[in-house]
This record gives sequence, C-alpha cells and structure tokens, in this order.
Amino acid sequence: MSNVLRIGVDIGGSQIRAAVVDDGGSIVDRCAMATPAQEGPEAVTEIVRRTVAKVRSGLTIRHIGVACPGPLDSRSGVTLGIATMHGFENYPLARNLSAALGQDVSLLHDGAAAAYGEWRFGAGRGCTTVAYITVSTGIGGAVITDGKVLTGRRGLAAHVGHIGLVRDGVMCGCGRRGCWEAYGAGPALAKRASMANASLVFDAAERGVASAKSIIEDYARILGEGIVNVLHAYDPDIVVLGGGVMQRFDQIKTAMLLHVRSQAMPAFRDIPIVRAERIGDSGLIGAAALSSPQF
Amino acid sequence: MSNVLRIGVDIGGSQIRAAVVDDGGSIVDRCAMATPAQEGPEAVTEIVRRTVAKVRSGLTIRHIGVACPGPLDSRSGVTLGIATMHGFENYPLARNLSAALGQDVSLLHDGAAAAYGEWRFGAGRGCTTVAYITVSTGIGGAVITDGKVLTGRRGLAAHVGHIGLVRDGVMCGCGRRGCWEAYGAGPALAKRASMANASLVFDAAERGVASAKSIIEDYARILGEGIVNVLHAYDPDIVVLGGGVMQRFDQIKTAMLLHVRSQAMPAFRDIPIVRAERIGDSGLIGAAALSSPQF
Repeated sequence: MSNVLRIGVDIGGSQIRAAVVDDGGSIVDRCAMATPAQEGPEAVTEIVRRTVAKVRSGLTIRHIGVACPGPLDSRSGVTLGIATMHGFENYPLARNLSAALGQDVSLLHDGAAAAYGEWRFGAGRGCTTVAYITVSTGIGGAVITDGKVLTGRRGLAAHVGHIGLVRDGVMCGCGRRGCWEAYGAGPALAKRASMANASLVFDAAERGVASAKSIIEDYARILGEGIVNVLHAYDPDIVVLGGGVMQRFDQIKTAMLLHVRSQAMPAFRDIPIVRAERIGDSGLIGAAALSSPQF
Repeated sequence: MSNVLRIGVDIGGSQIRAAVVDDGGSIVDRCAMATPAQEGPEAVTEIVRRTVAKVRSGLTIRHIGVACPGPLDSRSGVTLGIATMHGFENYPLARNLSAALGQDVSLLHDGAAAAYGEWRFGAGRGCTTVAYITVSTGIGGAVITDGKVLTGRRGLAAHVGHIGLVRDGVMCGCGRRGCWEAYGAGPALAKRASMANASLVFDAAERGVASAKSIIEDYARILGEGIVNVLHAYDPDIVVLGGGVMQRFDQIKTAMLLHVRSQAMPAFRDIPIVRAERIGDSGLIGAAALSSPQF
C-alpha cells in the first residue's frame, strides 16, 4: 500500500459513495449511503460529509475529489443543474463541500472522473487519447488527451449523448429531438421491450426469448452508430465503455462492433472498443486521482 | 514587418499556393499554381517546389509548413489518401517535400492549419478552445485547445463532416450513410437546387428566386444541426466557419443561428458562431505558424 492516500467521492442519483484510493489506484476502504436526492444540496452535502468522515478516520488524506452528474462548471466548481436531484441550479458545490469537509475539494463531471480513472488505472492505461462513454440512464462521456480531461469552455465537452442520431427523432430529455441518448440509454431499451428496466431485457435475451434478442441486436447497432460518431469526432487510441448497461457488454459486443467495423471510415476501424476495466469504480478512483494537483 | 518569416503552403485539389507569412500573421508575398491532381505525388511535389522557390527567393525562412487534404497522419507526415488527387495512398509527403525543398517541412491537415491560423491570427484569437469548421466540397474541421491542435491518435480528430445527420440517409463519399457532409457540403446544396454549383444557388436566392431562397433556408438549418453536434462534442469558446460556402455566411447566418440557439442544450447556446476572419487564407497562415516548433 502506498503512503499517499486520496479520497474519491461519487455523487449519484441513488447513492453517494466515498473511497480511499492509494497511489496505485487500489481502493483501500469504501462507504456508500443513499442520496437524499429531493432534499436539496445541504442534505446532500451532509451525506457527503458523513461518508467521507467514515472512510477518512485517522488517515492523512492528500486530496478529495468529488464526481457528480453534469452539467457543471469544473473550473469554478459550480453545478449548473442535476436532472436527478433537486436544487443544484448554479450551486457552488465545491466551495460548500470544502467548507463542510475542512479540506479543499475539486469537483468534476462524473464522466470525466470515470474517463480519468480508466486512463490512469484501467483500460486506457498508456494511451494518449481515451474516449470514455458511459451508458446507463443517460449517455455521457469524456475524453482524456495527453493526460488531461478535454474540458472545453466550461468543462462541458464530450456531451456525446447529445450528438444527434435520428434527424427530427424522438424528444430527448435535453429538449432536442433525436439525440443518441434518447435511443441508446438504458431506459430507451427498456421502453422498446415494454419492460421495467434494461436489465430485464438483457435477462430475457439471455434466457433465449427471441423478441428480446432481436431488440438487443437493434439496440447494439444503435450503440455502434453513436460510437462511430465518437471515433470520427476524437480519433481516440481506445474507446472505453462504462455505465450500468455495459455490465452486459458481452451481450451487445458482437453486433455493436460489427456495425462500427463496417460503418466507421476505414482509418478508424481498428480502434479498440472495450469495456471499462474498473467498471463501477472508474469514477471513484478517477475523482481521487484527479484531485491531486500534479495531474 | 517582422524579421522572422515562415512559409505556408496549401495544397488544394485545384491550386497549390505558397505564402511568406510574418510573425504578425500578415502575408508578405504569395504565389499560386494549378495542381497537377491526376499526375501523382512527384508532379505535385515539383509544383510545391516551384511555388516555394518563387516566394522564398533571397529570404531567410525559419520554417515551412504544408497543409493538405486528409486523411493524413500528421505525426509521421504520411498522407493516407487524398480523394481529389491521384497517388497519395500512404505517401511520405513530408519527407519527400523536405528533400525537394532542402528544408524540414511539417505536414498537417488543411482543416487543422486553418483552425490554427484562425486561433493565432483570426476570429479565434485569445480563445482557449476553438472549433473550426470548413464547408466547401466537403465538410471538415479541427479543434484547437490550449494552443494545440486536438489530434487524436493519428491527427484524424474532428472529422466532423462524418458525424451522422440522417440515420440510414444518403450514401456519403466516405462509405457511410447519412453523414453531415452528404447533406451540408456545397455539392449537396447544388444538387438539391439542380444547379451546377452552390454559388449559383446563393446567387439565385440573392436575386429573390423563391425556390432558391427556400432551399437555402433548409440548407442553413442543416448546417445548424451539425453545428449543434460540434458544440456538444467540444464545448468550444467559439465556432469559426470557413470554406467556400462560408463566403456566403450572410445569406445563411440567420436561419442557421436560429436553429442552433433553439436546439443546442441551454448551456451551449451563447457560444459565438462566426465567419473566419482570414477566410481563404486561414490555412496558409496557419500552416506557416504551426511549422514553428515553439507552437
């Protein structure tokens, strides 16, 4: 175990998790509590404080990095609004968490944290450019290039779920029609199969239900279509796929890659497309690692 | 006039141009010759040699930068193939031009050169992240961030013309269906109006021909749709539009911006979208400037 420890926090719509992470990216201790998503930022801050207190006890922690859903301005540490949580419009989360924790906190988009985690300690190790895509209740992402998160103006780069897929298509949660997210996120798959969630569709396909298998095949192609856009947009060394849906990577891999290999421009076809190595923890370890100023 | 002079070369499908550019981005001398597009790389190299010789005579030139259509590998200086020119498949253009010119030559994608030119000396001055889009016989682009071209793995990042617009749409030159380029480049506009080229459609609209005006309005919306994808992909400080079609920026601006302002996610709606300041010369001055190792 390394002597330098950092804490990563992942604020999700259902859980707030904190972990102590060592220099090698190993999780030394962890803790999770339910997110008081409808009770406002102060209640959320209090749960972050408690989870951090629990894992921090007695340890010297160099930095604390917090990942949370966007959109947020990672430069100023202000959330612009979190779809699944109440009261985060233009909220100075980094400043208020720093005060509550008695230690400077860096705030970053959960997609960026996961991308960074995979670049430092996961499937993207050693790569110059990593495109990370998370597919769960939405589709998000981040790009790491030369060891840095591609931020753009306000840390909002790589909103890849809101690249269009179907012109004048179905309404997306963002207000635009036809976004990749509206077709490729977990809820779209569930809806298509008239099931409660994406996991049940995968289960049914696994049991051999023909209609579910066919829906999964179409869905895998939709994921492939969006990935082609990501390849053309960033020319990454690797595409790393995370998020809940990618727990079922093995069930979609073949059809998804078949589409990418035939539809991407030839110069992009050999780019590896893999599942996140630290799937589930990429954001936690990335938030911890990026909290350190030397990165 | 600055004492430090550089030469920028722009290899296009119809013309090869060379210019001497000073430290302030001003063009001191220039020369253009027809491209022997079908005669192979050696004939092209010879014309580059002649144009450079013409503008270089008697001057001390610090560096020579060459911009040419992609796809190409800017790291190794190898062209992967140029759609409008014969014989450039896996051709070591930078090495051969360096030999012909007796001076090291850096090779970069024409979109990257133009983006860099606009960032250094044009509409993107002072911006951290510039997304440059060129709309002419194709749609290309490049992103500058923190003063560097976003290259990706092999300098192929920001192939924004090949982000999809219409799912299973018309066949694009790249082999994929429905790319933005297949709908938004100049030839698509001309075809839609059954005219020989895009310029004639703009002329007709300017004369008040109702059908042409309506086609331009639709076309402007198509450009806006692709720009929304670019905003979401890179979160730039500014979008700079170049290429032949953007000579007619004033005729498409209103409808294009209306679409962007209403369809982009709210956090991206205030990003300025402007015409290239050095339109026509952005690539030449960018190639010259990027040839210098300090950039």
